[in-house]
Amino acid sequence: MNGADRLCDTLLVNEVDVCFANPGTSEMHFVAALDRKPEMRCVLGLFEGVVTGAADGYARMADKPAATLLHCGPGMANALANMHNARRARTPMINVVGDHATYHLVHDAPLTSDIESLARPMSHFVRRIATPEDVGPAIGEAYAASLSLPGVTTVILPADCAWGSVEPAQLAPTSVPAAKTVDQATVKAVAEALRKHGGRAAFIMTGSSLRAGPMEMTARICATTGCRMIGQMSNGRIERGLGRVALPKVPYPIDIALGQLKDLDLIVLVGSQVPVGFFAYPGKPGRLIHDSCAVMTLAEPGDDLPGAIAALAEELGATKTAPTLIARPLPDQGALPGGALDADKVCTIVSRLMPENCIICDESVSSGRVFYQQCHTAPQHDYIQLTGGAIGEGIPLAIGAAVACPDRKVIGMQADGSGMYTVQGLWTQARENLDVVTVVFANRTYAILHGEMRAVGVNDFGRNAKLMLNLDEPALDWVGMARGMGVEAARATTAEEFTDLFKAALARKGPFLIEAVI
Amino acid sequence: MNGADRLCDTLLVNEVDVCFANPGTSEMHFVAALDRKPEMRCVLGLFEGVVTGAADGYARMADKPAATLLHCGPGMANALANMHNARRARTPMINVVGDHATYHLVHDAPLTSDIESLARPMSHFVRRIATPEDVGPAIGEAYAASLSLPGVTTVILPADCAWGSVEPAQLAPTSVPAAKTVDQATVKAVAEALRKHGGRAAFIMTGSSLRAGPMEMTARICATTGCRMIGQMSNGRIERGLGRVALPKVPYPIDIALGQLKDLDLIVLVGSQVPVGFFAYPGKPGRLIHDSCAVMTLAEPGDDLPGAIAALAEELGATKTAPTLIARPLPDQGALPGGALDADKVCTIVSRLMPENCIICDESVSSGRVFYQQCHTAPQHDYIQLTGGAIGEGIPLAIGAAVACPDRKVIGMQADGSGMYTVQGLWTQARENLDVVTVVFANRTYAILHGEMRAVGVNDFGRNAKLMLNLDEPALDWVGMARGMGVEAARATTAEEFTDLFKAALARKGPFLIEAVI
Repeated sequence: MNGADRLCDTLLVNEVDVCFANPGTSEMHFVAALDRKPEMRCVLGLFEGVVTGAADGYARMADKPAATLLHCGPGMANALANMHNARRARTPMINVVGDHATYHLVHDAPLTSDIESLARPMSHFVRRIATPEDVGPAIGEAYAASLSLPGVTTVILPADCAWGSVEPAQLAPTSVPAAKTVDQATVKAVAEALRKHGGRAAFIMTGSSLRAGPMEMTARICATTGCRMIGQMSNGRIERGLGRVALPKVPYPIDIALGQLKDLDLIVLVGSQVPVGFFAYPGKPGRLIHDSCAVMTLAEPGDDLPGAIAALAEELGATKTAPTLIARPLPDQGALPGGALDADKVCTIVSRLMPENCIICDESVSSGRVFYQQCHTAPQHDYIQLTGGAIGEGIPLAIGAAVACPDRKVIGMQADGSGMYTVQGLWTQARENLDVVTVVFANRTYAILHGEMRAVGVNDFGRNAKLMLNLDEPALDWVGMARGMGVEAARATTAEEFTDLFKAALARKGPFLIEAVI
Repeated sequence: MNGADRLCDTLLVNEVDVCFANPGTSEMHFVAALDRKPEMRCVLGLFEGVVTGAADGYARMADKPAATLLHCGPGMANALANMHNARRARTPMINVVGDHATYHLVHDAPLTSDIESLARPMSHFVRRIATPEDVGPAIGEAYAASLSLPGVTTVILPADCAWGSVEPAQLAPTSVPAAKTVDQATVKAVAEALRKHGGRAAFIMTGSSLRAGPMEMTARICATTGCRMIGQMSNGRIERGLGRVALPKVPYPIDIALGQLKDLDLIVLVGSQVPVGFFAYPGKPGRLIHDSCAVMTLAEPGDDLPGAIAALAEELGATKTAPTLIARPLPDQGALPGGALDADKVCTIVSRLMPENCIICDESVSSGRVFYQQCHTAPQHDYIQLTGGAIGEGIPLAIGAAVACPDRKVIGMQADGSGMYTVQGLWTQARENLDVVTVVFANRTYAILHGEMRAVGVNDFGRNAKLMLNLDEPALDWVGMARGMGVEAARATTAEEFTDLFKAALARKGPFLIEAVI
């Protein structure tokens, strides 16, 4: 057997059994090894951004990493933007980047580049494999590192380490350090501060604290102390819907965000950072809390966040306090919207029709601003979203979620400008017959940038600005593009048409795309 | 005026008047400044790989750099693969990457990343702008650096340096150091070696030595000394066709390349590197020349290559020797191929019908192996190609070439797997109404990888290998995708259909795509 076989075996013994791939010549032995492992599910992406975005969506829903197969520095470069999003979501991921044989690097062949320099900004663990026998340890370390922060890891596999022979060995699962338990002194200090600040305190939450259980426990603490709970601006995964907690998030528009947080004298970080502006604006602050607002850290990203919340609830005697949850039965919400379609109507219709246990992949950007709020009252669902601001995550994220959860409906809320970045992902949805409904908000513009231009004081756009901010002339025909990649699709221009199409898409299995012209 | 205005003015005073762009929020002041400069041509790409690939194609044909506008680290990450190709082609390029305001970086907002670490592997000049007044010097330095190696430069523009005010100033064009003249001792030494080795010597040429003039002069040297001239495996631009030199290149398949070079006792590098295998293969050498073959460098990449060749011809008394050129008139080549379409027939038909003065953008990968050889005898044309092995360059390269040369027909020879990487570029071809005919070799597979799998000894592919190497199930409908992005398109399944479509596409202006099903 060779190093590539050892690589596959090390992944499989750790139950990493999905590999999103876009191979090249230097990975041929890896491909051949994967071919000998039918228990590994290999999913091809026609561009590397699809590969890592899918790996991100997969791990968010599967709670374990996928492997990726990427080709040399430029192939990984194509994958970096969605590695960035995964890094911000703290998603476990094991990227395997093929490189030239160790002895070939000296020749500076055309595909040679500094892979480490490219990988490090988007990976908390980067390791170049030295020999065929080093493959197993390297993949094991990457697996452990992907789960222990958690986050993105990158392993560089020289071709000769893949094709070189290794001694057969009995492999054992890699041991992964348990998440760190938050010490009792921290818990006591936070409890005391919460008692003191009451309604002028808020949790800023992210990561595993946004599952239903820890959110409900946090709601008990809020009911006990009067404090608030707020999600970070963008998060890897939130369990939401009827019977769960209605969690506000820090909003993107800076003035609204400043307003949301202005009365706080204390924030308690739960795996999160101090809320800051997504961008800087002239004359506006970077931090969204005021200078005298105290900051306490209950738990850091690698810590046991649910455990820390449970300990805090215990300390505050809050474990039995009734939490505020979304009431059921749902009050009558009236008729669905009709008439000319707009973004808000799309959001309303989706939030009213989305089925129990679906997965929402949100890259709706400006078009979906009302959506998150609206689907507080939807049936229980998972909400996963663009986390790092690197657009082109939505279509791949839906791929990964659908691979992880084949029995659940995945609904992609997709801005058109962002969708074009990784539009190739639609083909993978077709190839794998994934149960994904993609709703494209076809506003034919980078709408968010129109707002940002106004924010910098430009209200009359000339020719160059229009050329750079609008996606019209020609309008993108999403139905044609989707069908061209094997995904059934249709266009809606009225709310009634959209409702009919969305209902039909929900009633069937397999990928479907709706171009919502707004 | 602000830093962004200074940026535009510095570009324009240096006659950099095309900006390929994909903007984001941190570049809004740059966009607003471009909007105040109608003399700057702004071309939107719907993905950053389109932007840098187009800038590459533009500069190869315009002989001056374009600017690009990229958004933060992840936006530049998407641009890196085609920056890599440009780096390998030694194409001048000025990438302007917007970043957070200087004082905002400390907050580690979601889009923050280490841009320098990402940029350096693909740029020989990386410079972060420090203040608004630093914008002009930084852009000037990048302009000079882009032309003097030549190559890819990256300037990082913090938002507050764009929006901060600068004093109005009278700008002068930036002085660019002239290409270095090769010293006479080197010329004499090479001349002596050529006289000695005669037919067992060869030039390995690239860069500006592959224009018609220096190639003809090199052919005079070859006729005088008996030596050969060979192009590097991949090159930024070659001037070719009837009445010019038929330049063989180092072939990709390693055994054929070894055969081509095996009789050489001397190679003379003209802006090139020692020929090496594109990849390493078990048991095969990395260098393609034998160990006792001498290597001399006539000129390095930044040197005046045509000047060095002229000096060498002078030294050898070869300036008046008749060179071997492609003969005209062209002998009768017989009827065009008919019947079921295959890759070779497509190549033959294109090479026989391509018009005088067209530009060939070659990313045909395995399908076009015979094409380069065939179009030795085509009318005069420029041949630009994928240089760094980072697929997804073809469609953008055609954009750039067409923007640089609006009066010339651009023909894209495009492999289907590679084309999917930057398929969004078709929209830019439509938006700008560029005169590009794209010929897609629709073999519905990563054909090159099938060959590479066989090269590693795998002849029977199992399910996983097929999933990763084939692009069927579903087949990509290139006609549908192209039309979806506003590009007229049609499909050919026979040689006759292809001939008819190709003739019709040549007879009209504007973008057209032919899906050649092979």
